[in-house]
Amino acid sequence: MQGILRGVLAPVLTPMNADLSPAVDKWIAFCKQLLADGCTGLAPFGTTSEANSLGLDERMAMLDALVAAGVPTAQLMPGVGTCAIPDTVKLAAQAARLGCGGVLMLPPFYYKGVSDEGVFRTVAEVIERVGDARLKVYVYHIPPIAVVGFSLAVIERLLKAYPGTVVGMKDSSGDWAHQQSVLEAFPAFDVFTGSERFLLANLRLGGVGTISAMANVIPDKIRFLYENYLAENADAVQERLDRYRAATRDYAAIPALKEIMATRTGDAAWRNLRPPLVNLSAAAAQEMLAKYAAA
Amino acid sequence: MQGILRGVLAPVLTPMNADLSPAVDKWIAFCKQLLADGCTGLAPFGTTSEANSLGLDERMAMLDALVAAGVPTAQLMPGVGTCAIPDTVKLAAQAARLGCGGVLMLPPFYYKGVSDEGVFRTVAEVIERVGDARLKVYVYHIPPIAVVGFSLAVIERLLKAYPGTVVGMKDSSGDWAHQQSVLEAFPAFDVFTGSERFLLANLRLGGVGTISAMANVIPDKIRFLYENYLAENADAVQERLDRYRAATRDYAAIPALKEIMATRTGDAAWRNLRPPLVNLSAAAAQEMLAKYAAA
Repeated sequence: MQGILRGVLAPVLTPMNADLSPAVDKWIAFCKQLLADGCTGLAPFGTTSEANSLGLDERMAMLDALVAAGVPTAQLMPGVGTCAIPDTVKLAAQAARLGCGGVLMLPPFYYKGVSDEGVFRTVAEVIERVGDARLKVYVYHIPPIAVVGFSLAVIERLLKAYPGTVVGMKDSSGDWAHQQSVLEAFPAFDVFTGSERFLLANLRLGGVGTISAMANVIPDKIRFLYENYLAENADAVQERLDRYRAATRDYAAIPALKEIMATRTGDAAWRNLRPPLVNLSAAAAQEMLAKYAAA
Repeated sequence: MQGILRGVLAPVLTPMNADLSPAVDKWIAFCKQLLADGCTGLAPFGTTSEANSLGLDERMAMLDALVAAGVPTAQLMPGVGTCAIPDTVKLAAQAARLGCGGVLMLPPFYYKGVSDEGVFRTVAEVIERVGDARLKVYVYHIPPIAVVGFSLAVIERLLKAYPGTVVGMKDSSGDWAHQQSVLEAFPAFDVFTGSERFLLANLRLGGVGTISAMANVIPDKIRFLYENYLAENADAVQERLDRYRAATRDYAAIPALKEIMATRTGDAAWRNLRPPLVNLSAAAAQEMLAKYAAA
């Protein structure tokens, strides 16, 4: 165990106003609710948060507001990844200064066919520029979206070069064989699974938990599995949990989760999405909600 | 012809200091040199410029400095694309305010599988927020890197919704059939080919020129073809031109071009690249330079 974060983290959905600005007060209340409902921590500004659709200023102002509202910084792992070293440095330095438990760092994702050397140098340059011993980096492996990823060779090199600073990863590859290889290769590395589908398998191999989009809507159920993964019926609990994801998996994830929030809260503004994301059609939303209710 | 830009534009390489900060004075001198050497305009902050590796503040300060140095704004088409609407709005508003001939706008490139509706809404939202009649948008179609692109349906919709504002595109698909379909579908749309390999074909079908990485090193030769595309020997001129690209095509483009600049100027600092890009190996650089010298 290298970092202090473990358990169930939500990549917090970002509620938006009609003019597509972040609904900051609603977001802060939602963050607090998630912690009350079962999350052990929060990963604001993840993919599910539409973070890369937010401006740099918006992200920084939101994190300041969240901390000012009293959310414990040790429980926060804000996403800080951008395409550009100086922008990532700004976000990571802010998070370290505020005492965040960690930061979630995408690889540089504009250019494609990026070499391991290039990914390593990018992360190294960010760490050197931030120059703050409080910085704890979790690398964010999500090739289905970022295309560029973190190979095992890059992880190994980062762990050697920055022990105690590079402490873990979120594996959103969707590929259990890959996650297993990371868990087996680096026993002291804090691996969060990007999908709660793999939570039991992750914990059994020494992983530290999950940062899952589904934690926005079923934090209690995911937390229950996290707390009871050694129980005899753990496989059954995992299977029960999987029904919620199965209900939503045929729909674009972020619009689907915002539909669930709109329905649950009766607040239609939860449906607001920033382009390029678009809402589910009314028919698809009804179909998804029916499956979800029956899960 | 909808915009005022045409001819040969260089997506200007960004020289960097040893600490990886932009070498702004050298960059401004290079911009002026390119215009003196044959470029009819400049597209700073393109892919070749490592623009998405530059911070938002760096980009804005550089454009201000370039304009303050007296480079005619009407000849500029700065890249303004980011993943996030507010950041793109900042860059586009600055360019419009400065009187730039146009802006080059990437689609939102973080999420994958983005719908046409999502791409349209993103560009529309940027245009509405900038709210400046001086804004002239050239959409930047480069699926090999951005993955997300501009379909013909999106272009058609943008042209109808924002006539006189969405005026053209850069087609860096590398796919002539695609470029031909755009040229044929939208005769009044200003299509620049992203590769000078297609310059003659582009001009013959009513295109307006090229924005090509190679214009950083052979602006005069590309300009010559542009000025003489109706000449009897135009095909031979195109073929002669193609030898320079053929000499470099097996090497990562940006490192290769910076190698050529370092060799030509005797200034080794031209080799500085910002991660995630990395230099060619010494052997590859030698091999490439020999091929280029023989082109």
